[in-house]
Amino acid sequence: MKLKLPKGMKDSLPEEMIVKQRLIDQLKEIFELYGYSPLDTPILERFDVLASKYAGGAEILKETFKLKDQGNRELGVRYDLTVPFARVVGMNPEMKMPFKRYHVAKVLRDGPIGMGRYREFWQCDVDLVGSKKVSAESEILSIVDTVFKKFNLKYDIELNNRKLLNEILDHLEVKKNKMDILLIIDKIKKISKEELKKELKKTGMEDRQIKKLEDIFNIEGTNKQKLSEVKKLIGETEGIKELEDLFDYLKTYNIKNYTLELSLTRGLAFYTGIVYETFLIKNDIKSAVASGGRYDDIVGKFLGSRLEYPCVGISFGLSRIADAIKENTEKKTVTDIFVIPIGVEKEAIRLTQRLRQEGIRSEIDLNKKGISKNLNYANSKNIPYVLFVGENELKEDKFKLKEMDSGKEITLTFDKVIEKLKR
Amino acid sequence: MKLKLPKGMKDSLPEEMIVKQRLIDQLKEIFELYGYSPLDTPILERFDVLASKYAGGAEILKETFKLKDQGNRELGVRYDLTVPFARVVGMNPEMKMPFKRYHVAKVLRDGPIGMGRYREFWQCDVDLVGSKKVSAESEILSIVDTVFKKFNLKYDIELNNRKLLNEILDHLEVKKNKMDILLIIDKIKKISKEELKKELKKTGMEDRQIKKLEDIFNIEGTNKQKLSEVKKLIGETEGIKELEDLFDYLKTYNIKNYTLELSLTRGLAFYTGIVYETFLIKNDIKSAVASGGRYDDIVGKFLGSRLEYPCVGISFGLSRIADAIKENTEKKTVTDIFVIPIGVEKEAIRLTQRLRQEGIRSEIDLNKKGISKNLNYANSKNIPYVLFVGENELKEDKFKLKEMDSGKEITLTFDKVIEKLKR
Repeated sequence: MKLKLPKGMKDSLPEEMIVKQRLIDQLKEIFELYGYSPLDTPILERFDVLASKYAGGAEILKETFKLKDQGNRELGVRYDLTVPFARVVGMNPEMKMPFKRYHVAKVLRDGPIGMGRYREFWQCDVDLVGSKKVSAESEILSIVDTVFKKFNLKYDIELNNRKLLNEILDHLEVKKNKMDILLIIDKIKKISKEELKKELKKTGMEDRQIKKLEDIFNIEGTNKQKLSEVKKLIGETEGIKELEDLFDYLKTYNIKNYTLELSLTRGLAFYTGIVYETFLIKNDIKSAVASGGRYDDIVGKFLGSRLEYPCVGISFGLSRIADAIKENTEKKTVTDIFVIPIGVEKEAIRLTQRLRQEGIRSEIDLNKKGISKNLNYANSKNIPYVLFVGENELKEDKFKLKEMDSGKEITLTFDKVIEKLKR
Repeated sequence: MKLKLPKGMKDSLPEEMIVKQRLIDQLKEIFELYGYSPLDTPILERFDVLASKYAGGAEILKETFKLKDQGNRELGVRYDLTVPFARVVGMNPEMKMPFKRYHVAKVLRDGPIGMGRYREFWQCDVDLVGSKKVSAESEILSIVDTVFKKFNLKYDIELNNRKLLNEILDHLEVKKNKMDILLIIDKIKKISKEELKKELKKTGMEDRQIKKLEDIFNIEGTNKQKLSEVKKLIGETEGIKELEDLFDYLKTYNIKNYTLELSLTRGLAFYTGIVYETFLIKNDIKSAVASGGRYDDIVGKFLGSRLEYPCVGISFGLSRIADAIKENTEKKTVTDIFVIPIGVEKEAIRLTQRLRQEGIRSEIDLNKKGISKNLNYANSKNIPYVLFVGENELKEDKFKLKEMDSGKEITLTFDKVIEKLKR
C-alpha cells in the first residue's frame, strides 16, 4: 500500500519537534510564573457546543471536522481552545474565580491549505475568567512581553478597544449593523479603500459617516496623542478610559512596544472590549504571532445565564514563533554523547548508565557496529561528543572523548568526562 | 443550552492536570536521557492506514472514530501511537537507523466505557527501529526501570518471547492456527482452565498437546530454572537463546524485578519476539502500567517491502501512573506566592514582576478585593505563601509573609522574601 498523510496535515520529525518541544516547555514555564495552570479538554466536542451561535461562528463551523460516535451522537473535532475553555467554565460553577489556565494543544480545521497553512496546527492559549478590570488585560500583555523578550524577538503589540469602536459609531450616529461594520473594518489592511467604502455603504452607512470614520482611523501621533484626539471628537467615554488605564498599567509593567491602532477589531464576533494583536518584526516585515482580547459574554450566553463570566485571553501561534527562533537553534538531536563500545559492550553499558544518572543524555551503539559506522551515525545526528570505551580505557581509566564539531580528541578519566558534559 | 462533554470523555482540571503534566515532563526527561527524540504525528490518519491488516487489527478498528474531509477522503482518529510511528518510518526512507523516538499524546477509541475506562486517553510511547539485537529490548526495559525507580513505585516486569511460544508449539507438533492459539493463551489469566481448554481444542489442538502446554506453563522456579527446564524439554532454540541474552543484559543494567512468564503473549497480533508487561504492586494488587515488545514486521509489510525494519517499543499508561503518584503529591496549584496589594496596586505589580524574574511563580490580585477575600482565594487554591504589600511595607522594606499552612506570619525585607521562596 502507498503510505500517505491526510491532506493538509504533516508529521513533525525530531529535528522540528525538538525546537517546538523546547518552545512549548519555555512558554509553559512563563505561564506558570504568572500563576496559570494547565487544563486539558478532549480533542472531540459535542457538535452542538461547537455550533452554538455564541461559539466560533458560521465561518469556522464550515471548516469543522464532523463525525458520529457509535451511539450516533454528533461530535466535532475542536477548531480552537477558547470554546472548550468556555464550556469548562460553564460546566464547573464551583470554580474559584479568577480562574487562570493555559492550554497547549492541536486544533483542526478542514479549510483551504497553502504555504504554511495546514489543517492541523498547535495553539497555545492563556486565558483568565473572573476579572472585569483592565489589570487582567495588562497581565496578559505582560506575559506576551516576557515571552518575546525571552527569545530576543523584536515585536510590536497593536491594540484597540471594541467599546471605543462602538462609541465612535454611536458618535457618528450609526444605528444599525454595528457588528457587521466591525467585521468589515477588520479587513481594512487586506482590501482597498474603495472596496472598504463599498462594503461599509452596503451596511447602510452614509458617505459623511464613512468619511468621518476614515478621518478617525487616519489620526496620527503617539498613542497618547491619538487617544486625546479621539477624546476631543467624541468626549470622555468608557472605552477611552479603559485604554488610558491600560496605558498606565503597561507603564507599570515597563512595556513600551505597543501601538494604538484605532481600526483594529479582530475578526471574531465574541470580543467585547480591549483587543490586541502582536507582530514579530524582522527586516521590516511584520507577522502576527499572538492575538486575543476580552470576551465577557460567551460563557454567560452559553449558559443562558445572567451571571457574569468576564474573560480575557491570548493565543500564541506556535509554528511562527518556532520558525523565528529556529534560526538561532541548530540542534537535530536531544543527545549529548554517543558511546562506542570496542569489544566491551556490557562495561560500556554500565558507564553509559552512570552518565545518565548524572543527567547526561547518552546513546550507546545497540548493534555492535564498527567504529567508523558509529562515528558516521553520531555525525549525521549532530551529536556533539563521542566516547570510546575499550578494554585499555577501562583498565587505565583514560577515555578518548571526541568533539565532533572540531574533530578534536582529548583523553580524560571517566570522572572528568562526566564533569565536562554535566550541564 | 445544556453544556455536556462527549460520552466517555472528560476534562482534566488543573488539580489533575498539574500532576499529569509533571509526570509527562519527568518521563520525557528520562526518555531523552536515553537519547530518544520527540516526534509528533497528526491526530487524524488516513483510514486505509489505520485499517491495514498489518496495523492494529479488526477488533480495534471497530472502535475507530471515522470521518471524512471536505474532499470526501476517509479519515480516522488514531487509536494508538504505534501505527502512526510505523507509517512515519515507512514514509521516511532517508531516516538514519537506529531511529529512537518518544511520543506522548492522546488516542481515542469509540469502545465500551466504565470504571476508569474512557474513550480518550493519554499514551506515552517509546520505540526504536533499526536493531535486531536484544540490547534494544534491554535498553527499553532499563527505561522502564528508571521510570519506576524515579517515582519510588514497586513494580515487576513479566516477560516472555513469542519465538519461544512458537517453538514450543512446534515441539508439540501443532501445525495450524498458531496465531489463534497465541491469542487464546493471552487470555489465560482472565478465563477458567476449562474455557481455555475448550478454546484451544477448537483450534484443532489435541488433548495431549494441551496437557503438555499446560505442564510447561506450570513450570515453577527462578527465571533461570524455568528457562533451563524448558530447554530440557525442547532443546536449545533461538527463543531461549534470546531470553538468556536478555537476562544477561538485565543483570548489566542491574534490573532484578522481572519474571519469566511462559504464557505471556500480549494481545496484539503484530509482536514477533520478546514481549513484556510491567505491573505496579500495591497491597499485593498488581495493575498493568507499561507494556510492549518487539514487532519486526509491521513497517516492511506496510510497504510491501523485504527491507527489514526491526522495531522494539513500550507504551506507558499515563493515568494509572499518575494515580499511583498522586497519593504522594498534594498540589492544587502551580503558584508559589500570592501578592495582596493594600492600596498600592502598581507598586505591588512591580514587586510581583521582580518575583517572577527570580523564577518564583506569583499571582497578584487583579480585582482590588479585600484582604480576607484574597486570603480565602489563596487558601482555596492551596497557594503556600501570601505577601502583603502596603505603603508602610514599601517605605520600610519590611513585608509580612504568611505561610498559609501554619498561619504563621514573618516579617522580611523584600530580598529575604525572594531568598526564602527561590527554588
